[in-house]
Amino acid sequence: MELNTEEFITEKVNEIVTAVGNGIAINALSGGVDSSVVTMLGHRALGKKLRTVFIQNGLMREGEPEMVKSVFHKLDIAIEIIDAQKEFLAALKGVTDPEKKREAITQIFYKKVFGRIVRESEAKFLLQGTILTDVDETVAGIKRQHNVFAQLGIDPQEAFGYQIIEPLIQLRKDGVRVVGKALGLPEEVFTRIPFPGPALAARIIGEVTEERLQTVRKATAVTERMLSGKGAFQYMAILHEDRVTGMREDRRDFGQQIEIRCWDSVDARTATPTKLPFGVLQKLAVNIIQEVPGIVSVTYNITTKPPSTIEAV
Amino acid sequence: MELNTEEFITEKVNEIVTAVGNGIAINALSGGVDSSVVTMLGHRALGKKLRTVFIQNGLMREGEPEMVKSVFHKLDIAIEIIDAQKEFLAALKGVTDPEKKREAITQIFYKKVFGRIVRESEAKFLLQGTILTDVDETVAGIKRQHNVFAQLGIDPQEAFGYQIIEPLIQLRKDGVRVVGKALGLPEEVFTRIPFPGPALAARIIGEVTEERLQTVRKATAVTERMLSGKGAFQYMAILHEDRVTGMREDRRDFGQQIEIRCWDSVDARTATPTKLPFGVLQKLAVNIIQEVPGIVSVTYNITTKPPSTIEAV
Repeated sequence: MELNTEEFITEKVNEIVTAVGNGIAINALSGGVDSSVVTMLGHRALGKKLRTVFIQNGLMREGEPEMVKSVFHKLDIAIEIIDAQKEFLAALKGVTDPEKKREAITQIFYKKVFGRIVRESEAKFLLQGTILTDVDETVAGIKRQHNVFAQLGIDPQEAFGYQIIEPLIQLRKDGVRVVGKALGLPEEVFTRIPFPGPALAARIIGEVTEERLQTVRKATAVTERMLSGKGAFQYMAILHEDRVTGMREDRRDFGQQIEIRCWDSVDARTATPTKLPFGVLQKLAVNIIQEVPGIVSVTYNITTKPPSTIEAV
Repeated sequence: MELNTEEFITEKVNEIVTAVGNGIAINALSGGVDSSVVTMLGHRALGKKLRTVFIQNGLMREGEPEMVKSVFHKLDIAIEIIDAQKEFLAALKGVTDPEKKREAITQIFYKKVFGRIVRESEAKFLLQGTILTDVDETVAGIKRQHNVFAQLGIDPQEAFGYQIIEPLIQLRKDGVRVVGKALGLPEEVFTRIPFPGPALAARIIGEVTEERLQTVRKATAVTERMLSGKGAFQYMAILHEDRVTGMREDRRDFGQQIEIRCWDSVDARTATPTKLPFGVLQKLAVNIIQEVPGIVSVTYNITTKPPSTIEAV
């Protein structure tokens, strides 16, 4: 089915207007494509009746809050930044199982941090950027996406006290990008590579600590700097828990390993590793080792999805 | 300094003859290049006064004892196979630290299994394939090689009751190969890729168990089958302890990861990852996932040595 972008936007704007009526709506913007498009759609429908918050959960990429604020300021949309770093880090302490990690983030986000903001705002409607791939993966039991509820038998009205509106739920990533472009988002936002709901917590195997977040954040910055503009669908740096032997200044340095994944994909349902030139891979390894303390080894993932998934956690 | 192969062989044969005199010598053959060359040198010097044993420690590659026995049978050298699988597995139980793993193997090999054989044989001389790179790495504190003693302040005569003769200690891997060829070893042996002393235990991050050995043994067989003849110095499959998310038959399969390393190097002092064609890497991942139960993800190491080392453990 071909997506008629203008029709889609008109239809969704009308749906949001009808659903919210004279109420107040709220949405959480992460800076990713999906939540950015929802922010644009929501503001087109509701104007100032939509409050948009950016929750600084401490799991974001380098310079993320500043980037988001500046982009939307130019589009005349005000973003409230909420600092919740301590709450997220506390909820993640000691959690190593990937599903429990995702669950801890969902709980702290919806029940505590965002839940509190929603209650205080008296908003009865939450706009959310769930897309079809999130639903597919959750229903298939591959990975529990943090923003999928109905399919898990959770009634948000009952559980959290608000209704959820999901205007993008029929789309996949490629469709979301087209809609984002039509809504006037800048290119660096609508072409932005996908980034997972649990953010950098999904890029850490094992426990999420401030120190390990710093490590993976630096490796992510190097990876995004070096692999952007190469036409890949998504790319990422993953911090492993396994230690490997390395050497620095001719002495043993029992260190950490970063795994790079770089995917070619249209809609994330299937994906293959990008055939990056070998020189790029080697340069990437050199830069990560030089710029990220504690890393002595870098690998490149060569598995397709399936049987791999896009993210490791 | 250029190696004069014939002079080297004559010199070493004479040294061995002089040292052993009318005594009995023994050596442990692992099937690797170094111990194979020592076996050839030793038999040239001592004939039947040298007993050569192959210790089946359960950490060997697929079909290894059969291969070794057949190769040396054709060269008229008898090999005794000693089954010590249970003792090695028991010594490795619960050991996860790389240095402790190496140490456990050294201890069980020299003090218990091989030590017992040496005592029963009444041999007073042990021929051993230590090479210069082993010494370098041990002295530098990078990795404790299982066959390096003097440099660690261990006197084998005192500790184990025998003298150690190390005829290859001035050579690096390239020199050892040249000597092996001149001594009449078949090409598949003298060109064989290096294999570490702790064998597959060095290819497992975390605890060495029978099940994990089976996994890494299968992955090693696939890797050696696919990467042989491509001109690389060494290639290996490493089983990680970290778990990653994967999918099989559209369901989540929280599985294991194999890391492939393939090195270009002359003497193992420095090394760079081989620029394998991308198609080979992808095929390797597909074959490992198909043939090795429990593996959902495969990576390729893109780091140079230094700061990496050749082996991970």
